Parts: sequence; structure tokens; C-alpha cells
Amino acid sequence: MGRLRRFWGWGYEHEGLSASEQRSLAERVQPFIDASFVAREPPTPSEISLPAPRLDVPDALAAWCSRDDFARAGHTYGKSFRDVVRSLDRTWEHPPDVVASPPDEAGVAAVLEWASDAGAIVIPYGGGSSVVGGVEAPRDDDRPVVSCDLEHLNKVLEVDRVSRAALIQAGTLGPDLEAQLRPFDLTLRHFPQSFEVSSLGGWIATRAGGHFASLHTHIDDFVESVRAVTPAGQWESRRLPGSGAGPAPDRLMLGSEGILGVITQAWMRLQDRPTFRASAVGRFATFGEAAHAAKALVQAGLWPSNCRVLEAAEAWMTGAGDGSEHLLLAGFESADHPVEVPLARATELVRDHGGTCAPKGGSSRPDEGDGKDASDGAADRWRSAFLRAPYFRDEIVRLGLINETFETAITWDRFDGFVDDVRRATEEALQSVGAWPALVTCRLTHVYPDGAAPYFTIVAPGHPTGRLEQWRVVKTATMEAVNRGGGTATHHHAVGRDHRPGYDCERPDLFAAQLRAAKRVVDPSFLLNPGVLIDP
Amino acid sequence: MGRLRRFWGWGYEHEGLSASEQRSLAERVQPFIDASFVAREPPTPSEISLPAPRLDVPDALAAWCSRDDFARAGHTYGKSFRDVVRSLDRTWEHPPDVVASPPDEAGVAAVLEWASDAGAIVIPYGGGSSVVGGVEAPRDDDRPVVSCDLEHLNKVLEVDRVSRAALIQAGTLGPDLEAQLRPFDLTLRHFPQSFEVSSLGGWIATRAGGHFASLHTHIDDFVESVRAVTPAGQWESRRLPGSGAGPAPDRLMLGSEGILGVITQAWMRLQDRPTFRASAVGRFATFGEAAHAAKALVQAGLWPSNCRVLEAAEAWMTGAGDGSEHLLLAGFESADHPVEVPLARATELVRDHGGTCAPKGGSSRPDEGDGKDASDGAADRWRSAFLRAPYFRDEIVRLGLINETFETAITWDRFDGFVDDVRRATEEALQSVGAWPALVTCRLTHVYPDGAAPYFTIVAPGHPTGRLEQWRVVKTATMEAVNRGGGTATHHHAVGRDHRPGYDCERPDLFAAQLRAAKRVVDPSFLLNPGVLIDP
Repeated sequence: MGRLRRFWGWGYEHEGLSASEQRSLAERVQPFIDASFVAREPPTPSEISLPAPRLDVPDALAAWCSRDDFARAGHTYGKSFRDVVRSLDRTWEHPPDVVASPPDEAGVAAVLEWASDAGAIVIPYGGGSSVVGGVEAPRDDDRPVVSCDLEHLNKVLEVDRVSRAALIQAGTLGPDLEAQLRPFDLTLRHFPQSFEVSSLGGWIATRAGGHFASLHTHIDDFVESVRAVTPAGQWESRRLPGSGAGPAPDRLMLGSEGILGVITQAWMRLQDRPTFRASAVGRFATFGEAAHAAKALVQAGLWPSNCRVLEAAEAWMTGAGDGSEHLLLAGFESADHPVEVPLARATELVRDHGGTCAPKGGSSRPDEGDGKDASDGAADRWRSAFLRAPYFRDEIVRLGLINETFETAITWDRFDGFVDDVRRATEEALQSVGAWPALVTCRLTHVYPDGAAPYFTIVAPGHPTGRLEQWRVVKTATMEAVNRGGGTATHHHAVGRDHRPGYDCERPDLFAAQLRAAKRVVDPSFLLNPGVLIDP
Repeated sequence: MGRLRRFWGWGYEHEGLSASEQRSLAERVQPFIDASFVAREPPTPSEISLPAPRLDVPDALAAWCSRDDFARAGHTYGKSFRDVVRSLDRTWEHPPDVVASPPDEAGVAAVLEWASDAGAIVIPYGGGSSVVGGVEAPRDDDRPVVSCDLEHLNKVLEVDRVSRAALIQAGTLGPDLEAQLRPFDLTLRHFPQSFEVSSLGGWIATRAGGHFASLHTHIDDFVESVRAVTPAGQWESRRLPGSGAGPAPDRLMLGSEGILGVITQAWMRLQDRPTFRASAVGRFATFGEAAHAAKALVQAGLWPSNCRVLEAAEAWMTGAGDGSEHLLLAGFESADHPVEVPLARATELVRDHGGTCAPKGGSSRPDEGDGKDASDGAADRWRSAFLRAPYFRDEIVRLGLINETFETAITWDRFDGFVDDVRRATEEALQSVGAWPALVTCRLTHVYPDGAAPYFTIVAPGHPTGRLEQWRVVKTATMEAVNRGGGTATHHHAVGRDHRPGYDCERPDLFAAQLRAAKRVVDPSFLLNPGVLIDP
């Protein structure tokens, strides 16, 4: 069975911060802490108290359906700041009535059939790492709720070494997926921050952003075909390397966030495990210069696998820098050939754009399979901080702070003003709710020839009992600023329930009507994750 | 006004074959020609005789709507083998009643409104180069027909040099589009074989396959946002470099083949004009070896811009080779850096896979903007033959032969057997209808890490009056073989009316129902290109 998942926050029990991580954290967030705040202890299972479930489980499904409070509490929320605060507050609002963990695809179909008969809602649940309210029950729907956890659909079913592809069950979590591919010397190389506790199905359903900072930024291009179970039957696309036959079926399932079916398995395009790597860190006086150097790298067609731009304050906060310089972390990798040549050109471009750059040589260390770069120094420190950030977040929230992130994407012509405007709107909102002094930092997580994906992190003092309301005001302001400036409601965090206001302003109205019509075809009762993406 | 389009065949009048091209053609197709066949002369406008149009044009639209027989005949068909035969036969079946050429987007909306009131069908028409019956009226629909020609929406409206993107009207043909981008030193680098007479809107509506043989094979990835007019109003997506907000709206419009709206303009991602190029030709004893060498190139992540594999017979037919060897044409290009390093690795891989290879050095000749490779020799001869092929096709058809192509895509694990099976099925069908001896050759037009896009060309003797029926039998057999083997009905030619049987076997049934529902939202009367992709 392995480790126990934290039911109130990120990851696993006993994976909390080490003593040195605690010291590092204290040093950085001390300025924002209200000295009078008493750190909140995590809830224990005995503190969970939920209303009685409104659903009885049919005998045929009883072996893998739970009405237990612990399971229900653990499936009530995703893992956003709001979710952790509510769990620390011992408040589980609108918990699912039943947590179903079907053993196979037929079990998923049985859950949908049962829910349809019982007039219940079904919320597909993969790793549960949503930070946008994507696995949470709707507030305005009185129907009973089944959380359908795909944890048992966790296998790589078939590997096609010739085409470098594999058929993988949707509930497979990142580490399990990579472990099963390793014997074939293959890797998906999809390493979102949520890697440890997110699933293939979740990545597809939310168009997750992964390891690659340029070129194949989202999971989308790695999907060869998809199978899903819907209330109207099975939806399955053909395995093809490329097709121009009508609108791509998979692209409708990609980003469907559980409203068009429960994704059960997919053929995924894989990579050989990289053995050549080289990286460099560019250092800049301004964030804008660093960003435009990153633009130059991708417009040059160098396609770095890593190309992250860290604002000085964010570099300091994550331990990647001392806060005096803005950093561009550029890395190249290949399973076939040395990558010093593109790195050298990247280094030139960094210098051409006003940066200084100390390249690190390439290496051929065996891949760790966890997205780790072979270089040490700033990139390694940042990578480590990146993967551990959610654990830090839980601690910061326990200490009474507001700590949340949001992200978007914008074309380069609007980039500079956009980042400034969004930051200003965020800071003003934080001030207006008394969450001040605060730190609002920015990094670029993904870079495109025509734009970039800015990612903002907020650390602010929270009101002892009013943090959620403070955050609601700030989140609304950020969403409005992003939308006003022409950005997207989300580059890779997904829409869920939390981003609906921004998303509703952004997608074509007629497309929303088309999506609603497409949903009605496969889910006439609107039982699949209702309220996510669209209303009935 | 420039050159006059051929109303009965490919391209422009006075662009027919040169004397030397005629000689080259005669030499190659002579073995297939029935000596008793009298070459058909192209029809003249005076030979056109059509039933009277069933629609009156409202005064407000009269200035740019034509009920003229010449315009109607020219808009009756696309440019497939069938289309040319029917035109040479002076047979224009189901011609449009009116050809509308709106001056702007408001005019397009006016056409849809008028058609809706008049109970007419509207067929969006860009360059008219469809080879799949995509711009042809349905046979089983009695409604009058308006062909909506976007020829006047032919401008680049706005250029964003910073993000390397441009807002381009959908009716802009390939050469006009590149000419308008040239002053900005930008290029779309989308060079399908139809480049000369196909439009941006057509490329988007059919998910055209372009210049790049790997990586960005279809137009899809170059679309930043789309605007379309539908009977239910305007459909417009937001300009974004990347978004993960729900299913991508543009991906529903991409491949919609005119059934979801008339695409009027799009923001397109552009490239700097390449100045570095290098190419090489690999020579192999078997087609399979050449194909698997191409696989190695893309699985290595070298992403050649050109990576075409020509069967020996196809190399001979196009003049690229003498027919004794199978060729792999590999080319690299960049606007930023020399490309000798990836070419050298490609050359190694060719040799590792049993080929011989004489690399040509890189060059920095200014780009011609027409997709021409700077190298000479086999690649150049092939490129020239590629672009001139449709003119040759018209001549071959005039000489009484069957000359058609079809294409698909398949994963590598099935590749070898698949190509053999499809070829055998095609040859058997040709024999069964007496179109024998025939030449069935194969090339790979696009290559993916997980598969390839085989493209078949047929040259066969045709029955003097029965070529269409012969072809119908052969086409059905090829479609069945492709489908049986797990391929797609089309990699980049689109579905139209001709590929419906194959497409219907391939797409998920529930997706077809979703597409139908999505159509109903924007086109409740099913007036837009009915019968293409789906039935009402």
C-alpha cells in the first residue's frame, strides 16, 4: 500500500520539511508572519465530522466504494491554498457522499450507470492535486455526489518500443508511470510540479504543463489516442501519429476537466531517456531583459527543454539566487546527440540581450527519471525548491500566511506592460484587504516564439480568521487584470470552478454553447463534474 | 487582375507544361497510354452549358454575386482527378446557382443571412484546390447552392513583429500571403503542393500539411487565433501563445471543412526567413530501410524541415532518381544558426541504417519564399517536380490515364505491413477493373517519432469512357485497406465528400455526434457545406 496520503494538504504524511528546510523557510517568510498567530496544527482523522452520506451503495459496487468520513474528507477538496486553509479549519464543505475506487474500466462504467440511476453527480478524481476547485462538488447542486477515484487504474498496459508509445491507465501517478516505463528505457518526461501526486488522466483532462519549457509545453502533443467512459457509452479515438481528418477528436477531450467523460486510458508518445545534457544560467539586471533573452532563444528555434526566467525576488525566495539578479535557467537534453552547440548559441543570445552567462558543460549522467537536471548550482537549487514548494506552502499556510500562485500566458507585444499591470493590480488588492506588506513575484514557466507564460507567487500576512475572504478579493482582482490585459485565465493550472469568471470572459461564446452541446451528447443529465467549465 | 485561373483544372491558364516537361512526361507515362486514345482538349468557356440558376440575388449583394455560367462551372468542383475528368467531359454536375465574392467580412455575413432566408446551401470557397470533394455541392440535397468565394479577403491586416505574428484574411492565397509578409522579413513557411492556388482559410479548415516534414507538420500549430462568421453570429478566439483553459477552441475550427463557419481571418505564428540551410540525400536498397532511417532522424529529435522518403519508382517518376535506389531527402534550415551539426548527425544515422549519403554543405542564400531548398541535385529536382505535379496531372488525364494520389498516416509498429497491404489492395483493385499494367508508388511526406504519413501515387491506363467508375472501385478498395490496417482516412488532404466512408469508420461515434451537436449550435439549418464530415 505504501505511504499514506495527507488528507488535509499536499503529498504524503511523513514527507514534511526537514530541519534545514524549516530554517530556510523561517528565514524567508519571517517578515510576513504575524507574531501573535498561533501556528495551526494539521487536523487528525478523529477531528473529521461530516453529515451522513445521502447515498446507499449497491451491493455489486460495495467492495470498492467507501462512505467513510476519512475517505470523504480526503476527496472533498483539491490542494489549493483555499483547500488547505479549509482543511486546517476542520471545515469540509460539500463532501462527496461516496468515494468509489473502481478496480477497472468496467467499474467506472458501473459507477456512471449507478449515479445516473441514483440521480447523483460524479466527480472524476485522479491524483487530487487540482488547485482550481476541479475535484470539488458544486455548491449550487443538491444532488448527491460520488468521487470516482481512479487509483486502481494504475498500470502501463502495453509498450510499443518501435513507435515509442505506451498504453497507460489514467489513474497512474507520475512516479508509478515512470517506474513502469524504465525497464523499456522509455520516459514520458512529463514532470509538472504536481508530478508526485497527479495522474495521467488528470494531466490530459487539464492540459497539464510539464517538463518542457518550450516546444512541447503541454501534455497535448504527447497524446496519441484516448479512451473514456461516458454516460452514453465508450469514447475512443484511433491511435495515429498524425491525422488531418476533421477536427482532432482528442483535442476535445484534452482540457475537458471531467465534464465529457472519465478518461480511463491513453496511448502516449514517449521519449528515449536523455543521456546528454547541458545547461547555463544567465544573469540579468532586469526581469524584462531576461524575458526577452528567453524570447530570443525560442524564436531562434533552439527549443531548450528548460527555459525558466526567475525574477530576482523569486530567485531569492526559492534559494536559486541571492535576490540581486534576475535569472534565466536554460537547459538542453537529448538521448541522441551532445547539446553543447545549441547551449553555446543560447549563451551568445543571453549575452546579446544584456546578460552574463556561465555555461556548465554537458554531461551524460544516467537520467534520474524525476526531471532533475544534471547540473548543480542555481538550476538544481531551483529545481529542488520547485518540487518541494507544495510542502513549503502547507507550512506557510499553517503559519497564518496567504501563499498562493496564479499563472497565465500573453503574447510578447503585450508582455512588459501586462506583467506590470497584473502585479500592480495584485498588490493593490492585497493592500486593500490589509494583507500587506506582501511579496508578489513572477517567473516564466514556459516560453513560446509568440509569447510567454508568467507565473505569479504571493506571500502575504493573512488575517487570523479572514484569509479566505482576503484571498477571494485578491483572486478576483488578479483574474480581472489578466483578462483586461488579454491574457488567458490559465496556462496550465486549468479552469475548474475557481477560474470560471476569467474563463467565461475569454472563450468564444459560441464555443461555450458548442461545448455545452457536446456535453449533452455524452452526458444528458449533466452528472459529470457539473459547473466546471460550463453551466448546464 | 493578373492571370486567369483554369476553370477546368489546376492553376492558371498559360502555365501549362514546357516543351521539355512535355518530353519528360511522354517518356515516363508512355508505357501506360492506350495508343488509340485521342487526347482530350480542354473545354472552352463557350462549351459550358448549365441549368438556369435557382436563386435570385438581392440587390444589395448584386455587385459581387455572379450567376454566370463560367463562374459557376469554375466553382462546381475542386481539383481532383475526378474533377478534371468531369470537366474534360464537359460535365458540370450540381453547379452552384450563384457564386458570391463578398468584398469583406460583413459581406460574408450578408451571404449567410441571405442564404438562410432563401433556404440555400453555402459552400465556403478559398483557393478551390480541394481534392476530396470539399467544395462540391451535395448530390442528395435539393436546396439551391451559393459558392462563397473569399478571393477579396486577401490582405495581411496587421503584423506584430515582436511576437512574430500577423492577422491575415482567410482568402489570401499562398504567394500573396508570402509577398505581403516579405517586407517584414517574416514568412509563414507553409508550402503545401497546392501553395499557388490555396488559401489560408482553406489550410485552416482542412488542417493542411505544409513545408515542414517533421515537428510542425500541419498548419495547426501556427494558428494563434481564428475568426469565423456563422449563421448564429461571429466566432472569435483570443490571441494567445498558449493556453490550458478548457478544450482549445481553435482546435474545433481546425479541420472543420466549412461546416462550422466561414473562416474570415486568423492571427498566424510566423518565422524569420531562414538564411542557413543544409541538406543531404540518403540512398537505400529498400524503401523500408529508408523509412526507418527517417524514423531514426525524428526519434533523435533532429527535427529536419525536410525529411521525405521516395520509393525508387517514385524517384524515377519525378526525375529525382534513376529508379535504382530509394531516397531519403533530409534538409535543415534556420534563420539563426548554422545547421551543419544536425545534418552531420542525420548523415550518420542514414549510414547506421544501411544508406549511403553525400551531404551537401550549408548555405546562406536568401530565401526564395517558395519553399525551394538551396541545394541542387535530387532534392531540387524532386521539389520542382512536386510543385509542378498538378500541371503534369492535368496533362496525364488529358492523355486518357488514371492519375491520382491518396495519403494516410500509420504508427511505426504497423508501418511495413501496412504499406505492403495498401499497395497490394490498390494493385488488385486496378487489375480488377482492367486498369493494368499500372504504377503504384509510395513516398513519405511527413515523419513523426511514432509513425509516418505514406503518400501513394497511381498511374494507370484508363478506359476511354469509364475512368471514373474504375477509379471509384479503386478508391473504395484503398480506403478499406487503409481503414483495415489502422491508418487514417487522410493525413492532410482532408475528408470532404470523397473520404466520408473512411472517416466514418475512424472517428469515435460519440465524437461525430458531438460534432453534429456543435454544428447545430452555429448552423441550425445545416446550410454550411452539408454532408461534408457529417450528415444532419
